[in-house]
Amino acid sequence: MKETKVVRLKNDVRLDKSILLVGLPGVGHVGKLVVDLLIEELDAEKIIEIYSPHFPPQVVVDEDSTVRLVNNEFFICKANDTDIVILAGDQQSATGNGHYELGELYMQIADELNVSRIYTLGGFPTGQLDHIEEVMGAVNDASMIEELKEHNVIFRDHEPGGGIVGAAGLILGLSKFRDIGAACLMGMTSGYMVDPKSAQSLMDVLSSILGIEVDVSKLEERAKDMEKVVANLMEAKQQQQQQQQMMPDSSREEDLGYIG
Amino acid sequence: MKETKVVRLKNDVRLDKSILLVGLPGVGHVGKLVVDLLIEELDAEKIIEIYSPHFPPQVVVDEDSTVRLVNNEFFICKANDTDIVILAGDQQSATGNGHYELGELYMQIADELNVSRIYTLGGFPTGQLDHIEEVMGAVNDASMIEELKEHNVIFRDHEPGGGIVGAAGLILGLSKFRDIGAACLMGMTSGYMVDPKSAQSLMDVLSSILGIEVDVSKLEERAKDMEKVVANLMEAKQQQQQQQQMMPDSSREEDLGYIG
Amino acid sequence: MKETKVVRLKNDVRLDKSILLVGLPGVGHVGKLVVDLLIEELDAEKIIEIYSPHFPPQVVVDEDSTVRLVNNEFFICKANDTDIVILAGDQQSATGNGHYELGELYMQIADELNVSRIYTLGGFPTGQLDHIEEVMGAVNDASMIEELKEHNVIFRDHEPGGGIVGAAGLILGLSKFRDIGAACLMGMTSGYMVDPKSAQSLMDVLSSILGIEVDVSKLEERAKDMEKVVANLMEAKQQQQQQQQMMPDSSREEDLGYIG
Amino acid sequence: MKETKVVRLKNDVRLDKSILLVGLPGVGHVGKLVVDLLIEELDAEKIIEIYSPHFPPQVVVDEDSTVRLVNNEFFICKANDTDIVILAGDQQSATGNGHYELGELYMQIADELNVSRIYTLGGFPTGQLDHIEEVMGAVNDASMIEELKEHNVIFRDHEPGGGIVGAAGLILGLSKFRDIGAACLMGMTSGYMVDPKSAQSLMDVLSSILGIEVDVSKLEERAKDMEKVVANLMEAKQQQQQQQQMMPDSSREEDLGYIG
Repeated sequence: MKETKVVRLKNDVRLDKSILLVGLPGVGHVGKLVVDLLIEELDAEKIIEIYSPHFPPQVVVDEDSTVRLVNNEFFICKANDTDIVILAGDQQSATGNGHYELGELYMQIADELNVSRIYTLGGFPTGQLDHIEEVMGAVNDASMIEELKEHNVIFRDHEPGGGIVGAAGLILGLSKFRDIGAACLMGMTSGYMVDPKSAQSLMDVLSSILGIEVDVSKLEERAKDMEKVVANLMEAKQQQQQQQQMMPDSSREEDLGYIG
Repeated sequence: MKETKVVRLKNDVRLDKSILLVGLPGVGHVGKLVVDLLIEELDAEKIIEIYSPHFPPQVVVDEDSTVRLVNNEFFICKANDTDIVILAGDQQSATGNGHYELGELYMQIADELNVSRIYTLGGFPTGQLDHIEEVMGAVNDASMIEELKEHNVIFRDHEPGGGIVGAAGLILGLSKFRDIGAACLMGMTSGYMVDPKSAQSLMDVLSSILGIEVDVSKLEERAKDMEKVVANLMEAKQQQQQQQQMMPDSSREEDLGYIG
Repeated sequence: MKETKVVRLKNDVRLDKSILLVGLPGVGHVGKLVVDLLIEELDAEKIIEIYSPHFPPQVVVDEDSTVRLVNNEFFICKANDTDIVILAGDQQSATGNGHYELGELYMQIADELNVSRIYTLGGFPTGQLDHIEEVMGAVNDASMIEELKEHNVIFRDHEPGGGIVGAAGLILGLSKFRDIGAACLMGMTSGYMVDPKSAQSLMDVLSSILGIEVDVSKLEERAKDMEKVVANLMEAKQQQQQQQQMMPDSSREEDLGYIG
Repeated sequence: MKETKVVRLKNDVRLDKSILLVGLPGVGHVGKLVVDLLIEELDAEKIIEIYSPHFPPQVVVDEDSTVRLVNNEFFICKANDTDIVILAGDQQSATGNGHYELGELYMQIADELNVSRIYTLGGFPTGQLDHIEEVMGAVNDASMIEELKEHNVIFRDHEPGGGIVGAAGLILGLSKFRDIGAACLMGMTSGYMVDPKSAQSLMDVLSSILGIEVDVSKLEERAKDMEKVVANLMEAKQQQQQQQQMMPDSSREEDLGYIG
């Protein structure tokens, strides 16, 4: 496979003023958790598979020990009579230029599917284990800000300070060239692990925007499991800090690690 | 050399319903050990050499101080009247997209050689120095599982959890597009060193599948040498652990290393 | 976006014997600070935007929470009746060959804009936190040296010893093929942080070369802020050294770090 | 510059049964030191410059503060009526596939210049600071071994065990496809620093092969300077080892570093 390959599972898909949701793997897998749940709960139909030499050379092993090449997939469904397009996947591009090439391809498919609004979903790494019930936004068109604030999206000047890296950001930048309004919605997350709790916060905001109700019990379950992991981590960290206070030279070295 | 180069050493190779075995370097070199032995013991004939700018820019130095470019090679032989094709080599692609490009080339050659079944051979890293007499499988077609279980291949849902990276996995994924049934057979191995013992376990399973008997004395010899290395390593590790128990702060730091 | 994309905001730009100033992000962001100030103070007009798959796959978030793809931009303005062209940007190429491709593009645009002299602006990493009031030069044409010395540019044989890496150097090398005289002017900077003080030194030299006066109060302000950061860092370093003298074995290890 | 660029400084170069010497930067810069000296002492004439996006995006700063793009260069000269071609340069390819592309280009130029024998010159890293007066060889044609042994080239089965990486090896591999006999001659060197002493050993062997005498006083001078550096390093290492014996837990950690 020398070139990216688009496999269409359904022809003649005609949508009107559709909304594209993008949830690829990233910080805390927050965006991926949200769209994977939406695909299930809204019973979305897969219409396109994308394979690319820009993805890692890897197969995923499914429940029944069968494998398939890592890919990205487009789904469609309805929410309150609105056409929803969902972009989900196992991986993002493993190369920088692959990100640009795939981003352009997603824009072409969005055009075909008459996408008029895009929400890319992701996580914002706080470096803190405590959960923050907040969803931060960034847009490619300032006129979207007021509307999103009504759905509890927070905006902070120049934030994220380091910009947005990867598909969630790139799709915002590229859709500007095509005059499609796009927002990136980011759940707050530690950045250290998969974060279903942050995904819940993000799902709340998204449900409000789309005017739908989604059963998040699966996220709640996973969130409970993760809470135990976090509790253990926090306890371990506390113990470590206590020990460091008793062992000056070793603690110093690790402190330097945290600064760097 | 700007493009991958296929050197055919023999024309008019006509095979019928052949089986392709793939054993490129990887975890524990388990797959490579198996196919290198098979090439020798079944007196396989080399028919194709593949050179590629995707391989590392490197020559191998042979026994007599002569060098040759690193490559991948196709061999053919017979086992119980069945045509066997073997893909062996010094290296896998050094780039992600090279993996996809070479994978596609291997599929084309498999088509030419009427391959109807593929076994990719590799190692599954356990992180444990103790030998586990087990061969794990993953398939691109669920209907192969029962048959392989009869030859003592173990299947575990969602395992390997991280998917299968590199040629062994990619070839499974790509052959699905061509409706060729393919399985990846993985010997258990520590992941720290070349593992002829794991190769023996894998050879047992493969011999059962192919209905052949192969003299594995060469693997046994190498396995004995490696056992000494492993014994030394385990002793060193034990001593280290004892010392760590006596030196609390230094041990802590290294323990953290193992978790990370 | 598979290829680099040049967006022209103004057609029919005709300049005569113009001077190109290049200030892309780099060591201490010295060059970027200088050209960003010049664009503001000389009220320069943006004429070209360049987007490229060689830039990182990233959007910048501006003050009002709106995003835009990272890019490079060309501006034009006048200084003492001389046409000035300015190349500024968020990022340099993230790939080696991208540097060469973009460098060539910049040369083509310089040709269009009748550039007859180029100054690339950057920082020279000293590894020292103390400010050194000095601007070092390197040229692609020895006949420029005497003239630049009159504007207090320092030249040292074979310096920088490691050559000049990235756009600031490459543009000098590539413009040689087109017989355009080009100099790289480097402010001395620690290499550890953004350095507005070094940018002031560089601005002094550049103002002298161009025969202009530029209000550097914005750089002065930022320099004062950075001075506090530096003072804190130096104090911390001093404390650390004192502690190390009291803790022989830990200090040793870190000392080795500094040598390596 | 999107493509590699060949600048010919002299047309109509006609050579007969010429010998190509390759000395690009590498382990200990041994090969580069030898060919740079030969170019000077044999008064070789530069005939070709090669620029490439596969080289690092970098300029070299020469003695007079002028810069030039890093490149590779071909020179010609005579030694005992034999036409000698020399390939020298600032850098090797920074990418794996660039190595293959440039290697092929060098083969094409070798063809043009009627090269009938190739010696690539390099260093073999011993990991030891002590000088070993030995030159190891590898060939692409076993019939060259006996002849080279007469000139004190040592051959060891399967050595170097890790193959030969980079241009010195690749050129051997690629010239095999064109039936040009080629040998890689490697001076023993620590691998830690530029090694003019190893270059002297290699020059001795090469002088014997070519039947020439070369004034190596410049290498001798540099070798004396390096000897002081080595003496200091060895003393420092000894002191460090003594200190480690007195500080058990810190020494342990570093020892592990040496093993890994």
